[in-house]
Amino acid sequence: MTTSTLLVLGGARSGKSRFAQMRAEAEDGALVYVATGQAFDTEMAERIDRHRADRGPRWRTVEAPLALAEAIAAEARPGQVVLVDCLTLWASNLMLGGHDIEAETERLAGAIRSARGPLILVSNEVGLGIVPENALARRFRDVAGRINQAVAGVVAEAVFVAAGLPLRLKG
Amino acid sequence: MTTSTLLVLGGARSGKSRFAQMRAEAEDGALVYVATGQAFDTEMAERIDRHRADRGPRWRTVEAPLALAEAIAAEARPGQVVLVDCLTLWASNLMLGGHDIEAETERLAGAIRSARGPLILVSNEVGLGIVPENALARRFRDVAGRINQAVAGVVAEAVFVAAGLPLRLKG
Amino acid sequence: MTTSTLLVLGGARSGKSRFAQMRAEAEDGALVYVATGQAFDTEMAERIDRHRADRGPRWRTVEAPLALAEAIAAEARPGQVVLVDCLTLWASNLMLGGHDIEAETERLAGAIRSARGPLILVSNEVGLGIVPENALARRFRDVAGRINQAVAGVVAEAVFVAAGLPLRLKG
Repeated sequence: MTTSTLLVLGGARSGKSRFAQMRAEAEDGALVYVATGQAFDTEMAERIDRHRADRGPRWRTVEAPLALAEAIAAEARPGQVVLVDCLTLWASNLMLGGHDIEAETERLAGAIRSARGPLILVSNEVGLGIVPENALARRFRDVAGRINQAVAGVVAEAVFVAAGLPLRLKG
Repeated sequence: MTTSTLLVLGGARSGKSRFAQMRAEAEDGALVYVATGQAFDTEMAERIDRHRADRGPRWRTVEAPLALAEAIAAEARPGQVVLVDCLTLWASNLMLGGHDIEAETERLAGAIRSARGPLILVSNEVGLGIVPENALARRFRDVAGRINQAVAGVVAEAVFVAAGLPLRLKG
Repeated sequence: MTTSTLLVLGGARSGKSRFAQMRAEAEDGALVYVATGQAFDTEMAERIDRHRADRGPRWRTVEAPLALAEAIAAEARPGQVVLVDCLTLWASNLMLGGHDIEAETERLAGAIRSARGPLILVSNEVGLGIVPENALARRFRDVAGRINQAVAGVVAEAVFVAAGLPLRLKG
């Protein structure tokens, strides 16, 4: 008995969240949006509000800026579809909070492997530009890339989205 | 009766323009190059001149830094192949001029849908690096990504080019 | 009689080197790692040491920060697998040293065409972010992109790796 798990990887404004939402809405069951973003400023708060409005009333939202493995363990069960958006903001929250990122990534991978219902995870690819001059940005790029690799290794299916269109990486 | 429309998406120096030109030159008919770039400095002027020389004498060049929907309406007709290079510079021109980007994007999408001859559009993917520190750069990234999604939604065919080689996104 | 040549293109922390190593280790024969990186600072020195330890004792390492065509000519022969990691650092070394990059790229392409044993080349895609503000970074982006196109043109096989997973570009 296998459960569908999907990683949706893409750039900023690539349509990856919309693609993930359409995939979730095509499944049967209740819809749970696991939000990792935190509004630190007005730009971010506006973006979060706009995304929530875009999703519409079919979606229940759960906030999990840090406790993502726990949220997946609690929500990914038969009869509902869980969408995590996104792993890159979660990585950023872990870094800012000084958490053990390797250990948290392993816990996330374990939670994905143990998911008992359909699970879709959205993540940013951030390593395809010029090496950042800022050392923190370079470290973030490393962290985000390692999380993407770890998650790609345990999901059943993975796509790379550009301009709203998917390229199949796996599954 | 359908007309071939193709979006060629890729990074800087990915070979996307050359790929698009080869595709255009493989079709029958006159060749029209719709240039959206404007030379604001020497670096840009040199690049424009080099590209024009690379294309050779088979091509007629039309400049459309802003009035892109109009240029497509006028040129995309039976018997000639139109290549627009590129949507990202057009987006930049719209932003610098304070135009209504959403409205212009809809007009562009309409012009693509109404094209009466083969049309190839080149665009940059710019959202796969670290979040820019500069707010204007972040806004530009959003604008460029939305235009790419809108155009990808109306063309018959789309490819992502890396190192001169295409990955098929659509069609 | 053809020899297998593979370009592995990807972003920072995309898993491209690991993918390339697994491909090399799946072949019969001795394993030769052609390293182009030079340790200019502690961050880089640590990364080089970590990568060498990760590869393990099956690999022999050859350093070729500049003389890459020569290293390929010497090592790419029947009975051993050569992995070049990576072309982007080689490009950076050429730029810093003021070398004729176009001529060196042609010599590299010639060496790849003449390889007498399996050859795998790793390279970064760096052109998918926002245009860098720094002119040197813009020039580097151009140089790296042109090298990727030239190499992609002569190898038998090319893949784009994201999150450790390959998309087939060629072959």
